[in-house]
Formats: sequence, structure tokens, C-alpha cells
Amino acid sequence: MVSRTSQDIRCLNRFEVLRHLYGGDEARSRQELATATGLSFATVANLTSELLEAGVLVEAGRAGSGGGRPRALLTLNAERGALIGVDVAEASVRVELFDLALRELHVQERPLPPDLVEPAQVVQEIAAGIDAVLAATDTPAEHVLGAGVSVPGLVEREGGVSAYSPYWAWRQVPLRALLAEHVGIPLYLDNPLKASTVAEMWFGAGREVDDLVVVTLRTGVGAGFAVGGALYRGFTNSAGEWGHTCLELDGRLCRCGSRGCVEAYVGTRGVVETLRAVAPDDPLLDTPDGAGVLRALARRAADGEPVAEEVVERTGRYLGAAVANLVNLLNPEVLVLGNQVAEQLGEPLLARTRAAVDRHALAQPLRAVDLRLSTLPENAVSRGAATFALEGFLNNRELFGSVSRARASRGRGGNRTAGK
Amino acid sequence: MVSRTSQDIRCLNRFEVLRHLYGGDEARSRQELATATGLSFATVANLTSELLEAGVLVEAGRAGSGGGRPRALLTLNAERGALIGVDVAEASVRVELFDLALRELHVQERPLPPDLVEPAQVVQEIAAGIDAVLAATDTPAEHVLGAGVSVPGLVEREGGVSAYSPYWAWRQVPLRALLAEHVGIPLYLDNPLKASTVAEMWFGAGREVDDLVVVTLRTGVGAGFAVGGALYRGFTNSAGEWGHTCLELDGRLCRCGSRGCVEAYVGTRGVVETLRAVAPDDPLLDTPDGAGVLRALARRAADGEPVAEEVVERTGRYLGAAVANLVNLLNPEVLVLGNQVAEQLGEPLLARTRAAVDRHALAQPLRAVDLRLSTLPENAVSRGAATFALEGFLNNRELFGSVSRARASRGRGGNRTAGK
Repeated sequence: MVSRTSQDIRCLNRFEVLRHLYGGDEARSRQELATATGLSFATVANLTSELLEAGVLVEAGRAGSGGGRPRALLTLNAERGALIGVDVAEASVRVELFDLALRELHVQERPLPPDLVEPAQVVQEIAAGIDAVLAATDTPAEHVLGAGVSVPGLVEREGGVSAYSPYWAWRQVPLRALLAEHVGIPLYLDNPLKASTVAEMWFGAGREVDDLVVVTLRTGVGAGFAVGGALYRGFTNSAGEWGHTCLELDGRLCRCGSRGCVEAYVGTRGVVETLRAVAPDDPLLDTPDGAGVLRALARRAADGEPVAEEVVERTGRYLGAAVANLVNLLNPEVLVLGNQVAEQLGEPLLARTRAAVDRHALAQPLRAVDLRLSTLPENAVSRGAATFALEGFLNNRELFGSVSRARASRGRGGNRTAGK
Repeated sequence: MVSRTSQDIRCLNRFEVLRHLYGGDEARSRQELATATGLSFATVANLTSELLEAGVLVEAGRAGSGGGRPRALLTLNAERGALIGVDVAEASVRVELFDLALRELHVQERPLPPDLVEPAQVVQEIAAGIDAVLAATDTPAEHVLGAGVSVPGLVEREGGVSAYSPYWAWRQVPLRALLAEHVGIPLYLDNPLKASTVAEMWFGAGREVDDLVVVTLRTGVGAGFAVGGALYRGFTNSAGEWGHTCLELDGRLCRCGSRGCVEAYVGTRGVVETLRAVAPDDPLLDTPDGAGVLRALARRAADGEPVAEEVVERTGRYLGAAVANLVNLLNPEVLVLGNQVAEQLGEPLLARTRAAVDRHALAQPLRAVDLRLSTLPENAVSRGAATFALEGFLNNRELFGSVSRARASRGRGGNRTAGK
């Protein structure tokens, strides 16, 4: 049974207020935040005083308010602490240091060997990356409020376990515990599609709408859902494995062992397979690096080279059919295409995808949806991972909302909702 | 922006308390309801006193409470009013009268002609059906609290408009307004997959879990989602069109005009098509009535007749692949298969479907999900439609929770959630 307490609701409201401050560079008054969030002024006043007390917000001058006394403006206190976001991808580990306003301070990208990688190796690269970004910016470890780590595949979030990693055949690897032996800061584990979705919710399309679908297109493919402004995780945190839904019965073999999966067509390797189908002797097929192939294809397609154009065309056709499934099934307000494949193939892929969605989706949900490319700065996954750490910090019950205060507000009919 | 008020939360909590009473035949104490719902005793006491005042609940004796003074037991007041549920299907209109405890009082099934049906004709059958069930039970129209009408296709719920009906090529038919000319009771319009899902939430699997997927298999095919105990509708109330997601690129032609849709394989007509593929000369193909074909196939398969067995086998393979998509994408706790195709082909179809889901779903969400046949009494759609009327009645702000009371509880941090 869902059992939302007033404590949970306070926390969601805290996120909501902050999302409006992370949205822009401007300081905002309590009144503006109340208008933007739809919360009452009293609630916003209560939440912001907690956030000021915890040092997350600071006052930043005053603004006139049409005759009345000037209103205090509030802004994020970037100096309050640092956050780290880690993106463990197929070929590299990216470690990014942010201030509390989620401005990038430093980034390190460390390559991984192209073959099977042991958990110890990944742990070592993460730990070394964290040491490096802290050293480069003279940041003491105590200043870091938390580190979020995105690892591909299925993740048991509460336990910090990589339940299954498709690249390296990991099973039930207690990654957080292994990492905690080297890193003395709070750690939050989840996967790229959830990280990308959380990044969109705080810094992208999710600032405008509460219901969206975020499609992640890299070696791994998935879809994250925000429902009513909250990430939808599913019963065991594995919701979103759209990459392993079937696009074509008995179609291409997927690395998950099944056939015809969406990922086998629109993931980085899927695009390479499409190139192989179009031009089996194309010299690009000898390039080991998928991102390099995508970059070269984008360049060739921009020059009007027919093989590359055909690959983009077919990829858009596959992607459009698969995206139309999401549109028909979930009827989202916004659907964002992001990550490697979308970044490299960009507008031409979007145009072809739109054309295919038009053919496959039902008229009503098609009219309702706004299909677009992600506008997030460079790496949505490491940014989203850092946001997990931000959320973890903001969820800290010692810092925010004492138990007694929460108890006092229960039993008024507002201590539980059917929301998720 | 989602902007849940304390009023909304009160209403969801009211539903939650009542769902526990609709669950069983037994009267329950406030304490038992608090334990079952996870709400505080004070909240339950507050909600139940409102429900007693409105006549929805009545006291039904007392029970000992281990030494303390005996606790009052509460039960539904079936006599408080009646509800009507209407299921407009391809070949018939079913009108069902219930008491407030959702016990069936009377049912009428009125056939529709097998060709294109005009809205006026459907309106007339519904109105005649309502008159008939009221007359048969001596129920005055004033005693009816509301009527829910399920109509196939896409529905604009707020406006009461059938936006698109696949059988009869209806577009933007203002069905509720047309019906209101003949029927003087509050009317609620939605479609079969939402009705089936709401029926499961109140009377089926949704009593045990808050996150479930309900698959509806009849001429039309769809999936309804409960997320955190609330029906997920999507941005424009068209979420759940799983029947028109692509199972096979360029596959069978679907009546929606697209190719390879799930519905073209596992809807009633899809099963008939599979029979045609297995045995093009089978005499059953001359039967115009899809339900009759399903019944005959079930009988023949039970007798071990190879053609029928092969049809069930193939249908299970298609259904399993499509259900695995839902399992991978949504990671539900329970997935219920219901309606005509599931009812007629029953356990043999479930067994084959399970085998195919095992092949197509990822290990983790597969382990998490409980796949089962619906156990709802006969027609989930008309029961769910009546439940829309029940929810509408329970949402009545004149009867429940005065505005001043709602205002008094705002601004305490509990006046809004990110739930949906």
C-alpha cells in the first residue's frame, strides 16, 4: 500500500520549490515561487525558511512589489556544498563535480578497456576520478554532500546493487558497498535512463510539464517516465526497459538474448547494424568506437552521401515506430529524445522519426505530444546522477522537517495521498 | 502543473477507505480500516463520520476489542442509492443496475445491428435499457445516483465526448449531451479499458496492490494502469492504447489503418485471423459472431483438436510477446488478463502466454510480476462504468467536505502532492 506521509509531501514540495530556482539564473521572491508552484504562500514561506536555515538558499536583495514593502529575493547557495555525478558507460567512466547550484566545476573522463570489465576495475576508476576532480578544484571531501553513480542495466537502488549489467555480464554486484571502501561520501546508485529522466525533470523539459517520457539512446536504450512530477520506478525499480520491448517478432538478435528488441535497431550498435545492412563493405564498419561511427555518419549524411542518409532514414523509421508505441501507450505531454544517438544524428533523425511517428501513432495522442530533442548541457547522465545526490541530501530528515513537526501535521486528512 | 489540494487528497482517502469495505462482505471497525489503509485513526474517524452523515455507511453492530469498550462496526449502506453501468460493445449494449454496495440488481443486454451504427441508435438503446432495468426493479429514477457509460475508442471524459470510435467511425460525438436529453441522471463517460481497470482497482487485484496493469482483450484491446492506487489517464485521457502498439513491423493490417498492431493478433478478430492462417477452410470461419468462434475454439482445444490447439498456442505466443513489453516497460506488481478472449480461452491461453512472457521479458521484472486471469464477476466493463458513477457521487463537493473545512487544512504542507 502506498502510504505517503506529510513528511514525504513536504519533501516533494521542497523539490518543487527548488526546481523553480534551478530553472533560471534569477533570484525569486516567495510570492513568485508560490505562483510558479501552485503551493500556498504559507507553505512556500515554511519551506523556504527551512531551506534558508539549512543553508541551501540565501537572500539575494529585495525587489519592489508595486507599492507594498519590498520582497526578499531568494537564490541557491552554490557554496553550501558540492555534488558529484558519475556516468559509468560502456567505454568510459565520467566523473563530474558540481556546486550546489549544479554548475559544473570540473570533469574527468577515464576510458575503460573494450573487453569484459571487473567490478573492482570500475570501482577503482570511479574512486580515482573522484580524487582527481577534488584535487583539481581544491575541494575537501567533507565539502561534498553526496555522489550519484549511474551504472548501466538493472539496479537495486535501496541496496546499492548492480543487479544485472548487460555489457559485462555482472550479476548482483554490491557496487555501493565496494565503492564505500574507497569513497567516504554518501553514495546513490541508479541507472542511466533514470538519471537522464531526473536531469530532464530538474533542468530540462520537466520544468515545464509534470508528465513526460525521456528516451535515452546510447549503447543501452531505455525510456524514463515522470508521472505527476515524480519519477515512475515500477515495482522493483526496473520500469523503463523500452529498449527490450519487441519491435519486430523474430527480428534482429539483441544482446539481451531476445530478438527484435528496440535497442537492436536504435541503440548505438543498432545503428551500426543498420549501416551493415545498407552497405556491408562500408569502411566505417571497421571503426571500433560506436560514437565515432555516429559522428562520421552524421557528417556524411549532412554532405548528402546516400548510404549515410539511408541509415538515418531507416533509424528514424525504426525509432518512430517504437516511439509511437510510447505515445499510444502513455499519452505523454512531452517526449524527449536524448543521449549519444540523438545528439549525433540530431535534427535529421528527429525529422525522420517524426514522420514515422505520424504514420504509426493514433491521431489523438499524436496531436497531444510534443516530440523534441533534449536541450540539456552535455552529459545528462552524470548531471542526473549528481541530482540523485542532491535529492538524497534534500531528503535528509535530520536537516529538514523535524519529526515532531511532521507528527503535528498528521491526521488532518493531508497525511497521505494515492500519488506515487 | 499538478496542484493537488487537500480536497483532492480527502477524496482519494475516502476512496481508499471505501475500497476496503467493498473488498469483503464484513463490517469493519474504524481501527481495522486505519490498519488496512495506513491512514491515521483520526483521519479515518473524520472520513467515516462524513460518510455516515452522507448515508453511504451505516453502523452494523459492535465488536469486542480485547478489553476496551466495544468498537462500532461500519458497513456500506446498499439502500442509499442505485448505480448504473453501461457497456457499449461492438455487437450489444449492456445496461446493469447495482445497489450502492455494487451488488447487481438487474441486467439487460440489447443487440446492436452488425453494420455501422449511428450515435442516435446507441443513445436510444442505452435509454431504453435504463428504463427497462428501472422498471423491472421498481426503482424510481431519483434513486439512481449516477450512470457510467463505457464506449469503445478514445473518449474526452470531461466533455463527455466520444472522440473516436473504431467500430463505427464516429468522430467527436457529444454522447453525454445526446444521452442527457433522454436520461435525467448524472452521466459519466469513458472507455472499456479504463472501466476494466477501475473495476479491478475496486473489486479485483487492485484491492491488494497499488500498481497494476489490466489488459482488456475483446474486439478492442488495451491496457489500463493503476499507479499508486490511482488510474493513470495520460495527458489527454488516451493512455493505454496498447492494442495499437506495434508487435510486428509491417505485420497484419489493423482496423486502425496501421500494420502489425497487438490488437490485430490478440483481439477477438485477431484470433479469428490466426484461425484463418492455421486452417483457411475451417467451417468456424463462417460464424459471424466473434464470441461464438472463441467459445467453439475453447471447446475444440479442450478436446485436443489440433487446429484449435495451434490457434491457442499462437495466440499465447503473440500475447506473451506483447505482455512482455508491458512487463519490461512498466515493471508492474500484478498484470491481469481480462475480458472476452481471456475469459473464453482461459487457463490454456494463460499457460501459453506465460511461457512466451518467460522467453521475452527480462529476468528482473519477470520475477517481480504476478500474471493472472481476472477474477471479476461477469462483466468488468459495466461494473467499472458503474464505479465511475460511484466515484462521481463520492466526489460530490456538496455532500462531502465543505469548502471551509478544506480551506482550514491548507497551508500545512499537506495541501499538494506530486501524485497523480
